[in-house]
Amino acid sequence: MTDTVVSSATKEVVIGFDRPFVMIGERINPTGRRLLAAEMRDGDFSRVEADALAQTTAGAQMLDVNAGIPLADEPALLARAVKLVQSVTDVPLSIDSSIIEALEAGIAVYEGKPLINSVTGEEEVLERVLPLVARHGAAVVAISNDETGISEDPDVRFEVARKIVNRAADHGIPACDVVVDPLVMPIGAMGTAGRQVFQLVRRLRTELGVNTTCGASNVSFGLPARHMITGTFLSMAIGAGLTSAIMNPMHPEVKNAVMAADVLSGNDRDCAMWIAEHRDPDAVGMRRRGGRRRSA
Amino acid sequence: MTDTVVSSATKEVVIGFDRPFVMIGERINPTGRRLLAAEMRDGDFSRVEADALAQTTAGAQMLDVNAGIPLADEPALLARAVKLVQSVTDVPLSIDSSIIEALEAGIAVYEGKPLINSVTGEEEVLERVLPLVARHGAAVVAISNDETGISEDPDVRFEVARKIVNRAADHGIPACDVVVDPLVMPIGAMGTAGRQVFQLVRRLRTELGVNTTCGASNVSFGLPARHMITGTFLSMAIGAGLTSAIMNPMHPEVKNAVMAADVLSGNDRDCAMWIAEHRDPDAVGMRRRGGRRRSA
Repeated sequence: MTDTVVSSATKEVVIGFDRPFVMIGERINPTGRRLLAAEMRDGDFSRVEADALAQTTAGAQMLDVNAGIPLADEPALLARAVKLVQSVTDVPLSIDSSIIEALEAGIAVYEGKPLINSVTGEEEVLERVLPLVARHGAAVVAISNDETGISEDPDVRFEVARKIVNRAADHGIPACDVVVDPLVMPIGAMGTAGRQVFQLVRRLRTELGVNTTCGASNVSFGLPARHMITGTFLSMAIGAGLTSAIMNPMHPEVKNAVMAADVLSGNDRDCAMWIAEHRDPDAVGMRRRGGRRRSA
Repeated sequence: MTDTVVSSATKEVVIGFDRPFVMIGERINPTGRRLLAAEMRDGDFSRVEADALAQTTAGAQMLDVNAGIPLADEPALLARAVKLVQSVTDVPLSIDSSIIEALEAGIAVYEGKPLINSVTGEEEVLERVLPLVARHGAAVVAISNDETGISEDPDVRFEVARKIVNRAADHGIPACDVVVDPLVMPIGAMGTAGRQVFQLVRRLRTELGVNTTCGASNVSFGLPARHMITGTFLSMAIGAGLTSAIMNPMHPEVKNAVMAADVLSGNDRDCAMWIAEHRDPDAVGMRRRGGRRRSA
């Protein structure tokens, strides 16, 4: 029973075993979104605001915020995005950057206890990110790769995760504040990508006792009807023990798979959230945006 | 690596670990289908034929055939249904009845090696059904309940399954010809129903080394948007090790979940079946019947 508690100024969200799965909206991220990147660089954050509202309306209990635009002032952009998103929604955020100065800038303006995304098993990254996490009493996403890259062997990735959890403890960060990302590869490129993640998630839960997250959309990269693959991946990963994901709640195939997996795991008590979402039969599968808000 | 081989006169299907999941069409069953029951009783088997063709066209690799109509001559009806279905399709059948004389009549006219559905852990049933299975060299579905009913404790159900597998061995039936049904209860009535099945399927696979099947639709009984629940249940059960199910392949939510789970388990090599099914983007999610045939 490991609970990772994150918060905004006014709202707490708990990522945990035997609780409803936590959907972390992935959309506020200029990577691969040329228009969003150009707008953010030019100081136009209207799409960031719209994406924040659309994702929380669709049921995201948290939002990931990333401002990774090449040759831009990422710390300033990330801080501005964090402030803006916190002004229009009350969900806790995942502050997402591979640049330590950007993480620092984002944390500096953040109200509440954020999820810092991310630390890896690389020595230099560990020793720069973990003190920041500890100083702010934050939680952190731990990505299970290190200097040697991303191993195809789930046992190697497990050991990287264990190393990060142990190192976090050295910095005074409890295991419940480390959310491990097992790293999801495209199934179209590597047929074992699904099994690896399911096996790793199961071990991370039973042996390390940590919560888990992942960038779910990557699994279906390049495949037709990809949202069904992503949704099915998430339901199977939830069956293996996954407790949160950075994902797009606006795709009904993805969101419904997560909600159904909560029902089947026994974490949607009396199927109440499912029934509330699907009570109106005319709306089933028709609603692309603006579904009823999913309670956290 | 347990393979359960069943066959028609001209076609073999293998239910097995690390193979594509086997969808056994559930529709030819008058239980709860008043019109079909009335027609069959009156000797009109046109709907049986139509259901056989529709399900195999939708991708069923096997068909379940049941003729359980109160106060009717079930042995004669089941034999006629089996003959008819074998005359219009080439898929192996699951011959389904709780009446031993009906099973006998169905087997007598069957061409190939059928799946006999079912034996339970009840003494009298064991000693009547297993000799029949052994005499015909058939495979059998073993339902994990006994005289005491259906336990809510998966460990008790596991022991019933073990008893049936051992008793089958006494009759010369190898474990690979026993396909265990863990019994699926409606999740709306029992919040632990999903977890029980996932846990049981995992143990049946790792400890008893047997293939598994279940009546999947039951899990979503009474819930709105139920086919999404059934599909998600199947994908999670496949993640736990389920190798076949008696289900309705004509519901796209259900069939797509199974096919996506095959992709994510690494059992749809190079995602070839998925890509063939979903190549035409206009057809995705639109096709209710008559999808491309899924290769076995």
